[in-house]
Amino acid sequence: MKALVYGGPGKKSWKDVPDPTIEAPRDAIIRVDAVTICGTDLHILGGDVPAVQPGRVLGHEAVGTVVSVGDGVTNLAVGDRVLASCISACGVCRYCREGSYGQCLGGGGWVLGHTVDGVQAEYARIPFADLSTYRLPATVSDEAAVLLADILPTSYEVGVLNGRVRPGDTVVVVGTGPIGLAAILTAKLFSPAQVVAVDRAQSRLDAAKQFGADVTVLADADPLAAVREVTGGLGADVVIEAVGTPAAFELCTTLVRPGGHVANVGVHGKPVTLHLEDLWIRNVTITTGLVDTHSTAKLLDMLVAGQLDTGHLVTHRFPLDEILAAYDVFARPAETGALKVVLSR
Amino acid sequence: MKALVYGGPGKKSWKDVPDPTIEAPRDAIIRVDAVTICGTDLHILGGDVPAVQPGRVLGHEAVGTVVSVGDGVTNLAVGDRVLASCISACGVCRYCREGSYGQCLGGGGWVLGHTVDGVQAEYARIPFADLSTYRLPATVSDEAAVLLADILPTSYEVGVLNGRVRPGDTVVVVGTGPIGLAAILTAKLFSPAQVVAVDRAQSRLDAAKQFGADVTVLADADPLAAVREVTGGLGADVVIEAVGTPAAFELCTTLVRPGGHVANVGVHGKPVTLHLEDLWIRNVTITTGLVDTHSTAKLLDMLVAGQLDTGHLVTHRFPLDEILAAYDVFARPAETGALKVVLSR
Repeated sequence: MKALVYGGPGKKSWKDVPDPTIEAPRDAIIRVDAVTICGTDLHILGGDVPAVQPGRVLGHEAVGTVVSVGDGVTNLAVGDRVLASCISACGVCRYCREGSYGQCLGGGGWVLGHTVDGVQAEYARIPFADLSTYRLPATVSDEAAVLLADILPTSYEVGVLNGRVRPGDTVVVVGTGPIGLAAILTAKLFSPAQVVAVDRAQSRLDAAKQFGADVTVLADADPLAAVREVTGGLGADVVIEAVGTPAAFELCTTLVRPGGHVANVGVHGKPVTLHLEDLWIRNVTITTGLVDTHSTAKLLDMLVAGQLDTGHLVTHRFPLDEILAAYDVFARPAETGALKVVLSR
Repeated sequence: MKALVYGGPGKKSWKDVPDPTIEAPRDAIIRVDAVTICGTDLHILGGDVPAVQPGRVLGHEAVGTVVSVGDGVTNLAVGDRVLASCISACGVCRYCREGSYGQCLGGGGWVLGHTVDGVQAEYARIPFADLSTYRLPATVSDEAAVLLADILPTSYEVGVLNGRVRPGDTVVVVGTGPIGLAAILTAKLFSPAQVVAVDRAQSRLDAAKQFGADVTVLADADPLAAVREVTGGLGADVVIEAVGTPAAFELCTTLVRPGGHVANVGVHGKPVTLHLEDLWIRNVTITTGLVDTHSTAKLLDMLVAGQLDTGHLVTHRFPLDEILAAYDVFARPAETGALKVVLSR
């Protein structure tokens, strides 16, 4: 089959690799019907995630059709149409038993396109398939469903829930790429007073407005002054970091009010400076996190019920074998206006 | 009267200053009967808290007797014996109304010995006296009560409660000066599985054992290996930073398990490096905080009931006018074995 193979920092190719096979009883093999590219894939290509070794098939967000299952799979059958989640879960270790699937100690967690071959390919092996997939109702399109593989639950759990957004809050989202936009979308579920979007690109701020941001600020303007102005000088209740750079993180820690929360969602490849000389006295809570996907089933219910409108997140569509062109479009959002790109069989 | 006056980094003197007077209707003046020196005072003298200006009377932990009250004081009378808390509270601003007294916007918060003259003096003005003091039962000694002005509620609220210590947890306390010891004492109220104490001085680790630490590790040994060994390789559920240096904070972030909490209690004068390139994926929660003292009344109840044994925290006693000698003893704990020093009239 063909797959998108990581070749070390800056290198990738679409090439022939062996078809995946059942390696463990709880594996399933899916035919990939729709797959996306994640900002995390760009971080990998930028060298920020050294655990990814050259030769690895990338990708951790797909919708597919089950083509074979191991003897230990009890909940899936050949022909089932499923969402393949970015998080696999053994279901047995102490973290899984607490619902912290992202920290699975039994060989799951974020493994697809990270420590095992991923789903930017014609076929993919899904470990612990019963717990790593969700059967999809016919009313949900591939394109809508694939957004629930990572960005919706990540933004919601690691951004909005970790940040403890509450009604009436001022929520600042720094970085309004797909993750930031999904954070705005899911933050709005908690009826914040206002959502402030900060980004370096006006096109992304325009998108943020579409997704419900009340105030938009260019990062090169003065976000601190803007946030102070709309909060009576206090600062934001919740600040969500959706970039993954030291500058963005450090900005977040200046925008938060005393007693507020900074929820880091971005993938970081470098240390950041934490200004504890200012923050020690300010009762600030900072959270980091890999998504656990404990919310995925509920997000899917909301999608089915029409309570989540993710439609505008997909801006570009390609056939699967044009994935290199899709990467090129996705990596230059300021020029292309790309949010999520979806590749389909 | 005489008072301990800050003269800029490294400088202090015990000298004549004007007696405090009622400046606002909600003020009270107390005669200081017992007062202590805080690690924060050493941070001030080290230049870590630039908001403290030369000429300021230091000190924010006292027991005293009310000698006069302003017209707006309703709950105190001349002659009352009170704990003067490190936190004053207007009671009216939005933070006070949420119980976040430490972040008071109305002229309270940590002001004593910080932005207004403090209690290392023969007399002191206590702003918002109704909300900034606690009347003391006769059964509680000055020496026991004065520990509730700062270190007990700080360790409990900013360390143990912010760190969300739960039964069965492994709790690591980095730095076992008075704050760290009080953190051990109050963490034990939640029945942790084990408390690990880390310090640079063996004498302080010996004290940590007395206060209930199950495992002690010299900071210069290998705390990471020690914590991994006693947690099956996982790391600690909760790590409490009770030092206030970059090295101590950074150690804390390596000792915490995925999904765990780092509660910073230390006063910091410099930025620290936060290794988000490791932590972004580990679901770590980091909290900072100035104490709100919402727990003080309950800690006082526990002290009266004998549920908190703070007796061993006071190692040295001086008359008030020997405060310079007391500072000298307190600042060299490795040599003197000092934990808290109490100065009495």
